Amino acid sequence: MDSIYQINLFLKKQKYKCNCIGIPKTIDNDIVFMDHTPGFGSATKFLINAVTEIYYDDFSYKKGRVNIVEIMGRNTGWLTASSMLSSLNNAKPDLIYVPEVDFDPDDFLNKVQKIYETKKHCLVCVSEGIHDKNGNLISISNETYDVFNHLQLGGVGAYLTKLVETKFNYKTRYFELSLLQRANSIIPSEQDIKEAVTIGKKALLYALKGKSGYMVNLKRISNEPYKIKYELIDLALVKNKTKYLPLTYVNSTKDNINESYISYVLPLISGKQKNHLREDGLLDIYFLEKHHDN
Amino acid sequence: MDSIYQINLFLKKQKYKCNCIGIPKTIDNDIVFMDHTPGFGSATKFLINAVTEIYYDDFSYKKGRVNIVEIMGRNTGWLTASSMLSSLNNAKPDLIYVPEVDFDPDDFLNKVQKIYETKKHCLVCVSEGIHDKNGNLISISNETYDVFNHLQLGGVGAYLTKLVETKFNYKTRYFELSLLQRANSIIPSEQDIKEAVTIGKKALLYALKGKSGYMVNLKRISNEPYKIKYELIDLALVKNKTKYLPLTYVNSTKDNINESYISYVLPLISGKQKNHLREDGLLDIYFLEKHHDN
Repeated sequence: MDSIYQINLFLKKQKYKCNCIGIPKTIDNDIVFMDHTPGFGSATKFLINAVTEIYYDDFSYKKGRVNIVEIMGRNTGWLTASSMLSSLNNAKPDLIYVPEVDFDPDDFLNKVQKIYETKKHCLVCVSEGIHDKNGNLISISNETYDVFNHLQLGGVGAYLTKLVETKFNYKTRYFELSLLQRANSIIPSEQDIKEAVTIGKKALLYALKGKSGYMVNLKRISNEPYKIKYELIDLALVKNKTKYLPLTYVNSTKDNINESYISYVLPLISGKQKNHLREDGLLDIYFLEKHHDN
Repeated sequence: MDSIYQINLFLKKQKYKCNCIGIPKTIDNDIVFMDHTPGFGSATKFLINAVTEIYYDDFSYKKGRVNIVEIMGRNTGWLTASSMLSSLNNAKPDLIYVPEVDFDPDDFLNKVQKIYETKKHCLVCVSEGIHDKNGNLISISNETYDVFNHLQLGGVGAYLTKLVETKFNYKTRYFELSLLQRANSIIPSEQDIKEAVTIGKKALLYALKGKSGYMVNLKRISNEPYKIKYELIDLALVKNKTKYLPLTYVNSTKDNINESYISYVLPLISGKQKNHLREDGLLDIYFLEKHHDN
């Protein structure tokens, strides 16, 4: 949004006739003033179901593992927080950590021990960007070099796995959902697609009407039934700002997400799933074009 | 299958009245005499579509990366070979490596260079169990220790990524599809579910009829239309054996899979996808019970 803001200023200065409207999209859901961002619903839908699969896979063993799921989100924990909705399938993560809360490794280890010794299963969902109280990222140390004498880069999943294994010898593994959460086209949220396409169309119409220097914003008017409205907002108000997960969604022990988060997320993933797979079992990669036709 | 074979022998010896029928299942598709194994179709369906998503994500950049997808299969390359079916979406991997073929790192690097310099994209799909001509696994050396002074374990994806980055400085990353390919319940193959449930039922019926010491086998009678039959096969014939990917499916330059593989795999993933998601967007974890009811 800062880029389009700067482009708009520059073109005005050059007296070049071109209208600039920002079209928001990010699975991180971190644009200020927006109720939610296009992309967040589809990423969150994939994530919740992937976490559910990981939970039940482990559940099929009497003695399971400590499973650590590393989820996208360097600065904000919206997507990671969504993992708590797997509770709707009785598959709630035992621990959820977001960047909005300082991470304490000792406290984490104590909690993992208590959970694993009781249940013989432990599911941890964690944002890639969590940090300690001094702001240091929780990840593999920069001092580690590999067999090629290259810096060994490792994310928070790899780090926490080693932390747990070093202390307890519990069977532990981590999952990087990586690109799949961002590129999910198999089970997109239909509501998300609808809103994303609408925002794009509105941006074009506003530009044609002569508006410039704005972003198309999305506001929630009511939750039951779910109703939204689109409006313009000045780019100067949204550029270079971050919408953090409110701490009211974080539980009192700072290691999970409150149930109040469900009613915020659920309308963004609900609705009858359309079939985006062809008869031969492959993804219909042109399904978005069909949405465009409407 | 060896376990149930041994149990059957033991029970016979003890004159304990119990009939033993082996029920096959593995996403590895490596049980001898079986046309394909229950689980393979669903894993392969997830895999092909995940590879397609990874391909198109990179395609959205003019200058992309070397993307390396690490796929399950320690001894056989069936699942990895299936990645070639993303060609049906014009998203064919540039290179596919399976354990049935010795892996040559120098040859690999030459090919990656040629492909990346031409296309500015390169997609590699590789079985976790590939090895060099001396049988050594292609993975992070055992001599690497991390910040905890623990042995640094890394798979083939991590290894090949470092290999490419060390030589060329191309942007490279790897994906471990990990559990998601095995636990896929979001887009299972309906054909796979049907066959798996049928095999379970037949096993029970054969046991009740007094049969013991057999596995329920699945044979393909015709491909167009796809027709199969179920039969019993002596456990002694299948136990401790491995069905490898025939080299006739591997191309002449030993770095991809021939089109003839498509007609083998396609019937296992085709058919109208049922909706296994509830109206709230979450997985219907009881969908298999509904299959049982039929």
